Amino acid sequence: MDEGPQSGDVVAVLAQNQAFYDAFEARSIVAMDEVWEHTDSVVCTHPGWPPLHGWSAVRQSWQRLLLNNEHLQFIVTDEWVVVRGDVAYVSNAENVLAAGQMQGSLTALNVFGRQPDGTWLMLAHHGSPMMGR
Amino acid sequence: MDEGPQSGDVVAVLAQNQAFYDAFEARSIVAMDEVWEHTDSVVCTHPGWPPLHGWSAVRQSWQRLLLNNEHLQFIVTDEWVVVRGDVAYVSNAENVLAAGQMQGSLTALNVFGRQPDGTWLMLAHHGSPMMGR
Repeated sequence: MDEGPQSGDVVAVLAQNQAFYDAFEARSIVAMDEVWEHTDSVVCTHPGWPPLHGWSAVRQSWQRLLLNNEHLQFIVTDEWVVVRGDVAYVSNAENVLAAGQMQGSLTALNVFGRQPDGTWLMLAHHGSPMMGR
Repeated sequence: MDEGPQSGDVVAVLAQNQAFYDAFEARSIVAMDEVWEHTDSVVCTHPGWPPLHGWSAVRQSWQRLLLNNEHLQFIVTDEWVVVRGDVAYVSNAENVLAAGQMQGSLTALNVFGRQPDGTWLMLAHHGSPMMGR
């Protein structure tokens, strides 16, 4: 994990990374809207899906996924972050619980872009299951 | 895909992305060494594996994987690339053949960083299977 002059960026990126999982857990498309950059530069790969490109397709997938009636809890662990100029990437584990029961562990690579106002928005998400977990 | 002033970057990034698959197909650790940045900023998630962080761990995984006697052919399709400052990310499908037979399709998110000499090196790879393919 980067330290020193970039530590403010690291904190901001990790907060936005957590906001992504919070939006998913809350099943809130409004909160999910606030996580992502609304441009053609975004790509989202849900576990087992082919990649979806561009905000329109990505948002539509979230709208449908967040209609799911099952309440999922995401416990994010093993966060690891690199800030490289105006882009940051995070890898982490996603430990998913439903009705308090462990459903399995996934891993994700999440990419964020620094905005003109200094905030960070999600550019890419790739999630996939870890075998045997 | 970015056009115009960045098209040279896009071409260079896609060439390096292809070099990654060529190194895998050739089972060449020497070629794989030339694809990646040799720093603590790299992360590699093989399909089903937890993420490996840092060049030492990533290289060790490739050294072992490339010892595999089975010759795999990688046909890369659906490449999609964004260049954002000194970082670029590519999504693509990995269509894997062994002995000429289709083994399945995976999808990857690959991240590259621009080097001081203008070349691009791999910072992150996350591969995972696509369901039903």
